[in-house]
Amino acid sequence: MSSMFRYSELAARMQPSPIRELFQMIRQPGMISFAGGFPDPAAFPIDLFADCAHVLSRDGRRVLQYGSSEGYPPLREFLLDLTSKRLGVDVHPDELLVTSGSQQGLNLVARVLLDPGDVVVIEAPTYPGTIHSLRNVGACFATIPCDAEGMQVERLPGIVEATVAATGRRPKLIYSVPDFSNPSGACMSLERRHRLVELATELEIPVFEDDPYGKLRFSGEALPHFARIAGGGPEVIYASSFSKVLAPGVRVAWTVADRELIRAMVLMRQGEDLCTSTVTQALVAEYCQHGYLHSHMKTILEVYSGKCRAMQTALENHLQAGAASWTEPEGGFFFWLELARGSSRELFDRAVAEKIAFVPGAAFYPDEDEQVGEIHTGDRFARLCFTFADHDAIDEGCRRLGRALNE
Amino acid sequence: MSSMFRYSELAARMQPSPIRELFQMIRQPGMISFAGGFPDPAAFPIDLFADCAHVLSRDGRRVLQYGSSEGYPPLREFLLDLTSKRLGVDVHPDELLVTSGSQQGLNLVARVLLDPGDVVVIEAPTYPGTIHSLRNVGACFATIPCDAEGMQVERLPGIVEATVAATGRRPKLIYSVPDFSNPSGACMSLERRHRLVELATELEIPVFEDDPYGKLRFSGEALPHFARIAGGGPEVIYASSFSKVLAPGVRVAWTVADRELIRAMVLMRQGEDLCTSTVTQALVAEYCQHGYLHSHMKTILEVYSGKCRAMQTALENHLQAGAASWTEPEGGFFFWLELARGSSRELFDRAVAEKIAFVPGAAFYPDEDEQVGEIHTGDRFARLCFTFADHDAIDEGCRRLGRALNE
Repeated sequence: MSSMFRYSELAARMQPSPIRELFQMIRQPGMISFAGGFPDPAAFPIDLFADCAHVLSRDGRRVLQYGSSEGYPPLREFLLDLTSKRLGVDVHPDELLVTSGSQQGLNLVARVLLDPGDVVVIEAPTYPGTIHSLRNVGACFATIPCDAEGMQVERLPGIVEATVAATGRRPKLIYSVPDFSNPSGACMSLERRHRLVELATELEIPVFEDDPYGKLRFSGEALPHFARIAGGGPEVIYASSFSKVLAPGVRVAWTVADRELIRAMVLMRQGEDLCTSTVTQALVAEYCQHGYLHSHMKTILEVYSGKCRAMQTALENHLQAGAASWTEPEGGFFFWLELARGSSRELFDRAVAEKIAFVPGAAFYPDEDEQVGEIHTGDRFARLCFTFADHDAIDEGCRRLGRALNE
Repeated sequence: MSSMFRYSELAARMQPSPIRELFQMIRQPGMISFAGGFPDPAAFPIDLFADCAHVLSRDGRRVLQYGSSEGYPPLREFLLDLTSKRLGVDVHPDELLVTSGSQQGLNLVARVLLDPGDVVVIEAPTYPGTIHSLRNVGACFATIPCDAEGMQVERLPGIVEATVAATGRRPKLIYSVPDFSNPSGACMSLERRHRLVELATELEIPVFEDDPYGKLRFSGEALPHFARIAGGGPEVIYASSFSKVLAPGVRVAWTVADRELIRAMVLMRQGEDLCTSTVTQALVAEYCQHGYLHSHMKTILEVYSGKCRAMQTALENHLQAGAASWTEPEGGFFFWLELARGSSRELFDRAVAEKIAFVPGAAFYPDEDEQVGEIHTGDRFARLCFTFADHDAIDEGCRRLGRALNE
């Protein structure tokens, strides 16, 4: 009977999300996982966050009721202040939308901006959830290679031209993670940031600046956000999240953009989830208003920089010289290894047999048939997350990885 | 500069959500509102729900982390059991998806099933959020009139035929709220339920059974869900929610459907919000596992049946005889008034001047240019929510409404 309704065709014509596979992989017994981009659960501020639940008693009538699609007012107030400081512009209330994860922000932008077949310029490599989210909206991808200084911005005009030549359509959106890119860990240089913002205006293509990791800097100097460089102009859409700095389980994030774009996103999300849970928004607002986020940032910066150091040391100790190369990240969640030879997918199979998981590089590139223009693939690369595993597991995991590399 | 990016065109080509207007309307000072379909905030189980926050301390490492897209395991376990009993079928874990509101469930079904321009059969009148959600996916509507026994199911084959004749496309989905319809309060008769399930199979069009109100029955006898009649067959997609029986602020609901359809919905939502907040899911699971939901249902049935009675009495007392007609509902949230003369939109303007708000009937029908086949509109009707206002406000609100009707 099921076949009559052809539901199996629906799932079959959709691509499985690489994220889903990660989540399943991580659950194997005995497995050490550098795969998922998960925060350290031992570093969650469990007691202070649980204390904030008194807001449920104090403001229960408001917190348990339907909330506005734009967000819970006390949280919005906190975020307007925080984001205005961070971006160096006066963010207007109409320019802010609280979302259930920053990926929802991207998805809403894509749903209002894109028609099926439209092209988005993305960094190669980039976050797999972004590829999945845009693919679900029917987008194709023009990929722009990254190096140690992030997106090779100078290639953008050529890529736009090639896209128009190949598809007859101008790209509708540029997506970038300029700080501690997932997966490469790279930060975009100051010069490229300025050039990208200029080009967005010249080419009339808005840039989505995804910033989950920007505040997780262990060393080096912070560079200005695109939104700061643009002075709050409509060419930049800025998104950030509590997932990596507080807890992913709250599903609270926010997008700052031109007010007309925000309005369209609000109309779109009113047909989806209506609003982000007021319960979690109230808990997060309470947590932030007590100043806990500020002190928690110090804690996790210490924890994560220690783990980053530990992975750097373990990789140096356990990987045969010349087998792989990498740059020690200055922040974020990830190491991005380039193998000297062989494919990371094949390495992955050997690694899983050794009970160590990572994400093969291919996951961070669209499929070849989704790319327009120059094709980029990542089979020589591997992403290792250093934040989830504890110090012993980091050392032992790198030892196992070393064995897998030598096989 | 904004005009260069044409964001204002995006918002302009989307229809505003009637829900949004309700939410704004309700905030005017001195206004008594029968407009929003809001639960009674005085009936929220604030203390017991807040007590459940101990789960944040007890299981913090799990609750604050990323969760699976299918839902938080303890909540899924509770829902599998509850839904299996409610539907009289053994719901398999692969057939259940936790969503952020049941509207998200509908939206995900629509996004995987429908292409732009596809037709959905909806009841006239129906929930405005459904119209908004489906409209955002590019759907058109074939409307099927309702009477005191709900959807006039016998007209379905003719409507499908007329749709094919008019558009060249077969409808892809049927949407129904068979118990205490929003807005009409009607319950579909047993005979029609059986016939609809038969027709879904014969016509090969799945039915989405939206059930936010089914458990809010004050009198009369409960009738079986479509899903029970279908014996768990793929022709019925069942959705329910905690919004009306516990609290909308948690944004926790669930969909039960064919496992292949659920799999496609999971893949779609992994590009949106990834998962429903584990924090709220854990709070709701804890609340349910303690048996609190069961006893809370008794409380709100008493509160809401009392308010329903109060509105019936107040309408009888304050509305001039013959000015409007209605049926006292046996459950749910709404009275659905048919005016003897004039338009409810004009009445609305006079009512707002009297500081009483309701929703004019037109909101529960798609725009004429979105409808295929026979056109239905609701200008003679008005929806009054009896659950939100307190007893005094119900009486005073009906008095004001009576004045507005007489003007």
